[in-house]
Amino acid sequence: MAILVVGSVALDTIRTARGRYPNRLGGSATFFSLAAARSTEVRIVAAVGEDFPSRLLGVLRHPRIDLSGLATLPGTTFRWEGRYSADFLSRQTTGLSLGVFAAFRPAIPPALRRSSSVFLANIDPHLQDLVLSQVSRPRLIAVDTIDHWIQHERDTLIRLLRRSDLIFLNEEEARLLTQRRSHRAMGAWLRSRGPSIVIIKQGWYGAVGWVGGAMVWVPAYPVDETVDPTGAGDSFAGGVLGVLDRAGRITEHVLRRAMLYGSVIGSFCVEGIGVSPLQRLTHARFQKRLANLKRISGLSRR
Amino acid sequence: MAILVVGSVALDTIRTARGRYPNRLGGSATFFSLAAARSTEVRIVAAVGEDFPSRLLGVLRHPRIDLSGLATLPGTTFRWEGRYSADFLSRQTTGLSLGVFAAFRPAIPPALRRSSSVFLANIDPHLQDLVLSQVSRPRLIAVDTIDHWIQHERDTLIRLLRRSDLIFLNEEEARLLTQRRSHRAMGAWLRSRGPSIVIIKQGWYGAVGWVGGAMVWVPAYPVDETVDPTGAGDSFAGGVLGVLDRAGRITEHVLRRAMLYGSVIGSFCVEGIGVSPLQRLTHARFQKRLANLKRISGLSRR
Repeated sequence: MAILVVGSVALDTIRTARGRYPNRLGGSATFFSLAAARSTEVRIVAAVGEDFPSRLLGVLRHPRIDLSGLATLPGTTFRWEGRYSADFLSRQTTGLSLGVFAAFRPAIPPALRRSSSVFLANIDPHLQDLVLSQVSRPRLIAVDTIDHWIQHERDTLIRLLRRSDLIFLNEEEARLLTQRRSHRAMGAWLRSRGPSIVIIKQGWYGAVGWVGGAMVWVPAYPVDETVDPTGAGDSFAGGVLGVLDRAGRITEHVLRRAMLYGSVIGSFCVEGIGVSPLQRLTHARFQKRLANLKRISGLSRR
Repeated sequence: MAILVVGSVALDTIRTARGRYPNRLGGSATFFSLAAARSTEVRIVAAVGEDFPSRLLGVLRHPRIDLSGLATLPGTTFRWEGRYSADFLSRQTTGLSLGVFAAFRPAIPPALRRSSSVFLANIDPHLQDLVLSQVSRPRLIAVDTIDHWIQHERDTLIRLLRRSDLIFLNEEEARLLTQRRSHRAMGAWLRSRGPSIVIIKQGWYGAVGWVGGAMVWVPAYPVDETVDPTGAGDSFAGGVLGVLDRAGRITEHVLRRAMLYGSVIGSFCVEGIGVSPLQRLTHARFQKRLANLKRISGLSRR
């Protein structure tokens, strides 16, 4: 069992009310992989530039992360700079340099083409489609996207959904894509377009999912203080897919367990800058928070 | 066992994208009582004017609602007119006529002074305090309020909290009162001010509560379409207190059950204009939705 993830490995500069944190390891594939590797094997396909600091590669060196598909190309690494509002309810992109990511055309190495799951992180849906044309019958194809592609590549994205088993969206994206208002109507619209599993993320409230017609609602783990929400969505997706990749049939119960994992990993992610909380995360601290979240949900008693 | 509720009985004129619905029965005590009477006895203390249509009184005539404290005073009934945005995320008060409510000084009839629970619906905290000075040792004192009192009568409200066992707030109100950002910090702040039970409502996401240090999270019941959210918060409170009034010790498990009831009643409330959905609500439909919400929460399996 292994998840092939295609997305970005980037250098993030993050500004919050507390300070500025330059050139931190970021990117969707990075957060996703560190989260998913808690449960299963992960294979990254992405590209960085020649300026990418080798010490940062060390962060991704993990017994369950395969970096053979991470190419170093002539040019510079994808850099993103963003500023969060004091309440973290909005963020502004203040700098963007695509570098080698501008010409990124994912080529899946032959050894990685047979993966049990594929996670298409947020990139151009044409490239997400290109990835699917190179892999052989994964058990689970999961797609993430953002408002930009919904607005500018809507038809391509909807075609991609037909080939997908699971889509992750946040609430604003779901509303934009489906033009529906209620969670139930959004879920029904999305499932009718292809994916049998739909997950709508609701930030600090939690997430709602559907599988086989059943609805599953999981709260966010209540953190005391958000320090940096960058990567929380990708960490959540990694937590979810890590569990789903190892599971047999994806039942309502399995999806709930996966979403609880995602919620817990996402909660650690926001408590520090960049990937640092995911690096530090011990099994004991993860399990303690998972048990606590189950209790908050009423799934276990003290 | 009986809940004494002190609040408003009003005539509401509601405008939504669909139309204008004039002079509907409304008011916090109305919605609360219709919801709570599903589980326990309710005693209303409120005042209406001589213009109050007697046919509307019929709606409140229910075997478990005691109307002996509902006074008809010289003058006009409290009237509220509001317009909702198309997405129901905001509302504007477009007309307000206090009528007899302007001089309302709740006087609790002797026969109602010994009630097992008291619900202080949203009125001036000085009046809420005046109610407490007239009742004899209720088992549970629950308080509701709005941003207006938090802004203009903050100290009075905080003094009232010391005498209260439970406070209901929505998220914006909780943030305004506590000046805290995270749910956990808001809950801790509120509990340190007096009430051992705190419930923060999160609209269509659900509600989070605390009792004896334990956190309880319940999703909103996912409705297909909102028609009129007026009274949803009071219906939720009625559902919650109806269960708590009949329960023995209020444990984490009891609070969760109460919040599930509140969530289900609130979901019916928003599906029609004014109190009409609460009037029509059958036991079978309520139970079906409750079972469904438990399943969505993972508290039961098919």
